[in-house]
Amino acid sequence: MGSGMARNLLRAGHELTVYNRTRAKGEALAGEGAKVASTPAEACGGEAVLSMLADDAAVEAVVFGEHGILTAATAGLIHVSMSTISTALSRRLAAAHAERGQGYVAAPVFGRPEAAAAAKLMVVAAGKPESVDRCQPALECLGQKVFNAGPEPEKANLIKVSGNFMLAAMLETFGEVFAVLRKSGVDLKLFLEIVNGNLFRSPVYEGYGKAAAEGRFEPAGFKLRLGLKDVKLALAAAEEVTAPMPLGSLLRDQFLSGVARGYGDIDWCGLARVIAEDAGLKQQ
Amino acid sequence: MGSGMARNLLRAGHELTVYNRTRAKGEALAGEGAKVASTPAEACGGEAVLSMLADDAAVEAVVFGEHGILTAATAGLIHVSMSTISTALSRRLAAAHAERGQGYVAAPVFGRPEAAAAAKLMVVAAGKPESVDRCQPALECLGQKVFNAGPEPEKANLIKVSGNFMLAAMLETFGEVFAVLRKSGVDLKLFLEIVNGNLFRSPVYEGYGKAAAEGRFEPAGFKLRLGLKDVKLALAAAEEVTAPMPLGSLLRDQFLSGVARGYGDIDWCGLARVIAEDAGLKQQ
Amino acid sequence: MGSGMARNLLRAGHELTVYNRTRAKGEALAGEGAKVASTPAEACGGEAVLSMLADDAAVEAVVFGEHGILTAATAGLIHVSMSTISTALSRRLAAAHAERGQGYVAAPVFGRPEAAAAAKLMVVAAGKPESVDRCQPALECLGQKVFNAGPEPEKANLIKVSGNFMLAAMLETFGEVFAVLRKSGVDLKLFLEIVNGNLFRSPVYEGYGKAAAEGRFEPAGFKLRLGLKDVKLALAAAEEVTAPMPLGSLLRDQFLSGVARGYGDIDWCGLARVIAEDAGLKQQ
Amino acid sequence: MGSGMARNLLRAGHELTVYNRTRAKGEALAGEGAKVASTPAEACGGEAVLSMLADDAAVEAVVFGEHGILTAATAGLIHVSMSTISTALSRRLAAAHAERGQGYVAAPVFGRPEAAAAAKLMVVAAGKPESVDRCQPALECLGQKVFNAGPEPEKANLIKVSGNFMLAAMLETFGEVFAVLRKSGVDLKLFLEIVNGNLFRSPVYEGYGKAAAEGRFEPAGFKLRLGLKDVKLALAAAEEVTAPMPLGSLLRDQFLSGVARGYGDIDWCGLARVIAEDAGLKQQ
Repeated sequence: MGSGMARNLLRAGHELTVYNRTRAKGEALAGEGAKVASTPAEACGGEAVLSMLADDAAVEAVVFGEHGILTAATAGLIHVSMSTISTALSRRLAAAHAERGQGYVAAPVFGRPEAAAAAKLMVVAAGKPESVDRCQPALECLGQKVFNAGPEPEKANLIKVSGNFMLAAMLETFGEVFAVLRKSGVDLKLFLEIVNGNLFRSPVYEGYGKAAAEGRFEPAGFKLRLGLKDVKLALAAAEEVTAPMPLGSLLRDQFLSGVARGYGDIDWCGLARVIAEDAGLKQQ
Repeated sequence: MGSGMARNLLRAGHELTVYNRTRAKGEALAGEGAKVASTPAEACGGEAVLSMLADDAAVEAVVFGEHGILTAATAGLIHVSMSTISTALSRRLAAAHAERGQGYVAAPVFGRPEAAAAAKLMVVAAGKPESVDRCQPALECLGQKVFNAGPEPEKANLIKVSGNFMLAAMLETFGEVFAVLRKSGVDLKLFLEIVNGNLFRSPVYEGYGKAAAEGRFEPAGFKLRLGLKDVKLALAAAEEVTAPMPLGSLLRDQFLSGVARGYGDIDWCGLARVIAEDAGLKQQ
Repeated sequence: MGSGMARNLLRAGHELTVYNRTRAKGEALAGEGAKVASTPAEACGGEAVLSMLADDAAVEAVVFGEHGILTAATAGLIHVSMSTISTALSRRLAAAHAERGQGYVAAPVFGRPEAAAAAKLMVVAAGKPESVDRCQPALECLGQKVFNAGPEPEKANLIKVSGNFMLAAMLETFGEVFAVLRKSGVDLKLFLEIVNGNLFRSPVYEGYGKAAAEGRFEPAGFKLRLGLKDVKLALAAAEEVTAPMPLGSLLRDQFLSGVARGYGDIDWCGLARVIAEDAGLKQQ
Repeated sequence: MGSGMARNLLRAGHELTVYNRTRAKGEALAGEGAKVASTPAEACGGEAVLSMLADDAAVEAVVFGEHGILTAATAGLIHVSMSTISTALSRRLAAAHAERGQGYVAAPVFGRPEAAAAAKLMVVAAGKPESVDRCQPALECLGQKVFNAGPEPEKANLIKVSGNFMLAAMLETFGEVFAVLRKSGVDLKLFLEIVNGNLFRSPVYEGYGKAAAEGRFEPAGFKLRLGLKDVKLALAAAEEVTAPMPLGSLLRDQFLSGVARGYGDIDWCGLARVIAEDAGLKQQ
């Protein structure tokens, strides 16, 4: 994800210092003009530092850890946090940066690595207007659209995890329907042609529906265990405002069972496999 | 629903006898060339009899009841059953008609009354090839597309209830997300613009998302109690092949609670109201 | 079940004619003084006819079928329906018998075949007071207690299916807790000693808890597929009064998955196996 | 809870220094021989320090906070942690104390404040054998039974939260059954007499069943919001070993909805009220 984004920033003429836990990944960008840092701290010399990491723990390590962003950043630097993280951590990051006079913009994205490489991400940015404004040019290098979700950073994170929750809900829906159709002998492609081709007409349904119908779960575009992580983020955000999400709970249990069965590293649309097994079906 | 369909058949030059439990509804079509029948039996004089009714019970009454289709129909007549009914009843109808040398085609449709009036329904037809072929011209008057789901009629019904199940799942998804977003102070329209406008890009998400976001549940385009009926049909079809549908079970419980709370006659996207109440929100 | 009950009636001096679909089962009682009937109708010559059958379909066949109870019974005869059946069928039986001047008492029982043999069933009787009173002596031969659940027969059936629902809920509870404890390395027997031995202190928890902890699912005391049937009866009764039972729905899905996985004939506490598999555990 | 336990320790002749955030509560025990501490640190002068607090956060504050147990305790002192806390925190406490040469015993209890006052708690202790042995006499003053759950402290916590999960599951079960019975017009007391009096025969079912049947939810013996906390602890423990608990998820959602509806401070058997509302029932 990060390397595609980095290339787009370099192409747009930005000066860039890159850091990756696996140094070789950073060095691959050196030929394209990036400086390579050995610690997150070394990547904090510019106007903004963009982070794109796997989960809350990774972001906490890079920000609060030794040689982390928080202590390295000068006042005025803006941390643009693009990872899919919890609203709670986003709130905590905003407070920690503010305390040191640093800016913080949450700017999670929709889109896979291919979209990142093609500068076709959708970016949902939120934070103090002046901070968001200053980052806007960089964000526009990365995505085809940059949405502004207002002054509270965690709202951007909430929108991101809610979007992913909706995708996960679609995967469960496909999984349940496909198990029944398979056991009933209905052709899944015909079903998709009718129901998505003429009713939902969604490219997302098209793509995931096809993959689930064909049992094409590897290589993973987005791993099932990350699906579990994101559903948990949605549930945590809902709990902050005391709202039950029974479908969210179901999704959490299904993904958790998928990981327990050893499917953590297949694509998250492999939820269909968990559901098929529960219906007594052998693997496709 | 039926009157729009009837007009399209008349316009295409078909001879038509109409029957409705409420005779006035049939008579409204007399001026356009339809004969009006007093019983289902009287509507069985042509090559085919099309039925479009609310539920299994209504279809059973019209087919198996006194002055019903089964005893009135001559051998060779085809019953085109277009209602959203159970796979079990469809199978039973096929057998009963076959026993008397009558044809049976299941041809449920996707689309609301407006689509029926505009001949823009999507028809999913299944049955013996020769029967489906004979009905094809009539079905083409009614919809923009006619899909052929093979020789077993109940497969068409299964596709229909599975499609409706997917819609219901989407409504639950919107309901849960919107409750959290409302309690968190995120603008629902912005969310829809981001997540549907750029990710799902589905006209169905667009329409229902907007209605649910605005709390526009009346007048009902499709009543919540009919949503309950359709989810139950999906669960029944799943049970026939011994497949659990945990999301289906959740939907059933939510719709059932909606009816218990007195919301049976609002639009089925009013599921969002049930969910909002469970999150402690007052009505929009 | 039936033979134990029959013996207790004979022992108490009642004249008894027995009918079983498998004639040999009836004949086994001939030596103890029972007459053996070839049809349900032939067993209707006394004051009352007691039925104890597997499910709604079996009761419908015996009552409404050819040579069935309904047409054979004289006015005044009381049908004592002791099977675990739906409230809907119980209501329908009451009406059908009343129409012919026959009595109808619903008298489902709690207890396994051993309890039936030992005359230790618990009987829940409901129906018109005069009918229940007349059956009382026979019912007292069969069980250690006879409860009167009032004049509406289906109330007795509702109490019975609700009781079984509570047992099923306990089985799910054990299943989930045991999967976690097993994966965590906690001794299940110690857990049972603490939590049932000192907290719940229920003989039912004791028995089922031990069986589930030991993975002793065969031979089945009560088959998993019958557990599915009873949960469905509870859900059907709840639906009649428009009440959602989300735990009921979960139970239905779990039992259904158990049947789909091929566990329909193990004991219903084998629900623990389904749950263990979902947690990635291999069979005990 | 704490004051009853303190009295039993004093009665048994132990020297006791007490600390409570609300100093007055501690002072109430001064007349009975307890010294009163102003900070947790001041209560660490003896051989062992027993903590009984509301939740993880309270324990963390008292142990890791300023003037907390961790820094005040000398090597050799044993922290007996009796609160219902997460397995994760228990593990963390064990490690932190071990690092300083301090002992740690997890010893959560079953029983309400009345049981604590009457020295009738059930204690589940776990930790290094020598530590548990040394605490044994003190624990025996507090409860009627002390179980040893082995050398890993968090196992005791897991047993405790699993036990509470089983209670919560029973409350949901009662809630669902009672909603159906109430809407069906069946007397709840008769039902309890039959199903608990003769089948489950559990004093816990008796007590909670009666309270739920009568709608007696105040004053709270154990608050609904604490029920939510405990179910979340069970789910967290299950997640540590990658085990889904679908009933646990349902319980979490129901309790969460209860809190959202404003019922956080009624007794946790008030779950029945949430369920009754979902069935369209007005408050009892």
